[in-house]
Amino acid sequence: MSEFKPQMTVAEIEAFLDREFPQIHDGGRCFFVDSVAPGEASLRLRTAERHLRPGGTVSGPTLFTLADLVAYVAILAHIGPVALAVTTNLSINFLRKPEPGDLIGHCRILKLGRSLVVVEVTIRADGHPAAVAHAVATYSIPPRRNAVS
Amino acid sequence: MSEFKPQMTVAEIEAFLDREFPQIHDGGRCFFVDSVAPGEASLRLRTAERHLRPGGTVSGPTLFTLADLVAYVAILAHIGPVALAVTTNLSINFLRKPEPGDLIGHCRILKLGRSLVVVEVTIRADGHPAAVAHAVATYSIPPRRNAVS
Amino acid sequence: MSEFKPQMTVAEIEAFLDREFPQIHDGGRCFFVDSVAPGEASLRLRTAERHLRPGGTVSGPTLFTLADLVAYVAILAHIGPVALAVTTNLSINFLRKPEPGDLIGHCRILKLGRSLVVVEVTIRADGHPAAVAHAVATYSIPPRRNAVS
Amino acid sequence: MSEFKPQMTVAEIEAFLDREFPQIHDGGRCFFVDSVAPGEASLRLRTAERHLRPGGTVSGPTLFTLADLVAYVAILAHIGPVALAVTTNLSINFLRKPEPGDLIGHCRILKLGRSLVVVEVTIRADGHPAAVAHAVATYSIPPRRNAVS
Repeated sequence: MSEFKPQMTVAEIEAFLDREFPQIHDGGRCFFVDSVAPGEASLRLRTAERHLRPGGTVSGPTLFTLADLVAYVAILAHIGPVALAVTTNLSINFLRKPEPGDLIGHCRILKLGRSLVVVEVTIRADGHPAAVAHAVATYSIPPRRNAVS
Repeated sequence: MSEFKPQMTVAEIEAFLDREFPQIHDGGRCFFVDSVAPGEASLRLRTAERHLRPGGTVSGPTLFTLADLVAYVAILAHIGPVALAVTTNLSINFLRKPEPGDLIGHCRILKLGRSLVVVEVTIRADGHPAAVAHAVATYSIPPRRNAVS
Repeated sequence: MSEFKPQMTVAEIEAFLDREFPQIHDGGRCFFVDSVAPGEASLRLRTAERHLRPGGTVSGPTLFTLADLVAYVAILAHIGPVALAVTTNLSINFLRKPEPGDLIGHCRILKLGRSLVVVEVTIRADGHPAAVAHAVATYSIPPRRNAVS
Repeated sequence: MSEFKPQMTVAEIEAFLDREFPQIHDGGRCFFVDSVAPGEASLRLRTAERHLRPGGTVSGPTLFTLADLVAYVAILAHIGPVALAVTTNLSINFLRKPEPGDLIGHCRILKLGRSLVVVEVTIRADGHPAAVAHAVATYSIPPRRNAVS
């Protein structure tokens, strides 16, 4: 869709996250921006012990965090390092129990409005076609897009 | 995804809907099954005056009905004419004001479990790439799949 | 909650709906504003044949319409007859099969922001405590609140 | 609502959580069951540094975790320490930026079916009436309710 045009590269996004959200790397770096494309972004989570729950599958809060973060990355890529997008709603369906390993969150922008952005996110285990979780989220963009840095 | 294999053709689905849900054609036939494919189905709505709201755009209840019906068609196509799927949750995002004309609801099955089915639906104006609405819905499949007819 | 203060009476709201949304009465008057209170509103639906589906229970689109309309009434009551609120998301859970009769939709405003309003709606059969459906919805308020009338 | 009758006391629930989900206390005990009542439960989160995000407000994943956990507590209280409820969907609206301190998640059961439970959760800062977040979630109860312990 030609309405979407990324404003930042993968390297620029990772540098921005490292500077503005260092806490996503608490306990060891585990999130990696895989790709950015028009209207899309992918984020990889390399799961560690702290992401698991009893039984050894990846926890719900971890999947929530991956969905929210890849959505944030997709929006950041398309509107640039401006006033931060704020999550207003996130609805997540848990479809299958995800095993530890690499999980890929893939975000697709459904609507990029001036004040609201709506996205969908599909989470899969790397190399497997079946979704383990699917989310739809809405983000509010503050009225003035002042540069953060 | 090889896990999905339709059990009914477009003609069989339309015959089933005509017999079991004649009321969807109240006021004149407007819903047409466009296609069925592994894990997917498309339903066309030819909007009439009764689907519009002040201002002349397609009403929210109409978009809800299209999303719910194409999901029902997709599930029916994959599990056959058995005990009816029941909508347990439907979350719909309204993205753009849809003009009257042909709307296409496209459903993709995210999970086809024994008792729960999760789907996503994208609604577009025929021939336009931008989604006007997007829905995620969950359906409950009654325990015993007795044939309805 | 003292943050909420209705700006319109039940009679004013009904007059506004009759003038601006006469089509909600198509097929015969069936929606009645029961009450308005700080942060709340109730709408009664007297179901008719056209609201039922095979099996004789109230249809999903009817419950969606009731949820959306009582939310609209609650917002209208609190911000006045200004630029119309637009539904951006509505997520509805269907909890029990509702029998025909009087259904009461009760809306509670969760957040009344300048540009976004979030509400929850509980639908019950009149006189019964158990909810038949529950919805959460978000409405966008256009930037300039010009009077509609 | 007389359909709801708790099967476990606050002390029994806390003992069960300590035994089965010790990881919720990783980094220091912060979750406390406040109360259980017919159809309801309340859980207190005493926020620590690890629950905050840049700017000093409570993070989205923390609110998600509180919503999910109080729902789990409410369901556990009403069906007993049996085969574990599994989150199938959680939809959360973020309403206000929550300051650090004690947050109370209050869960109300909307439907307690044999295989599906639907709940709503309101999160407030202790002592403040305004909700900071609101969630609706669906849990699947495995077919056989074998005792876990």
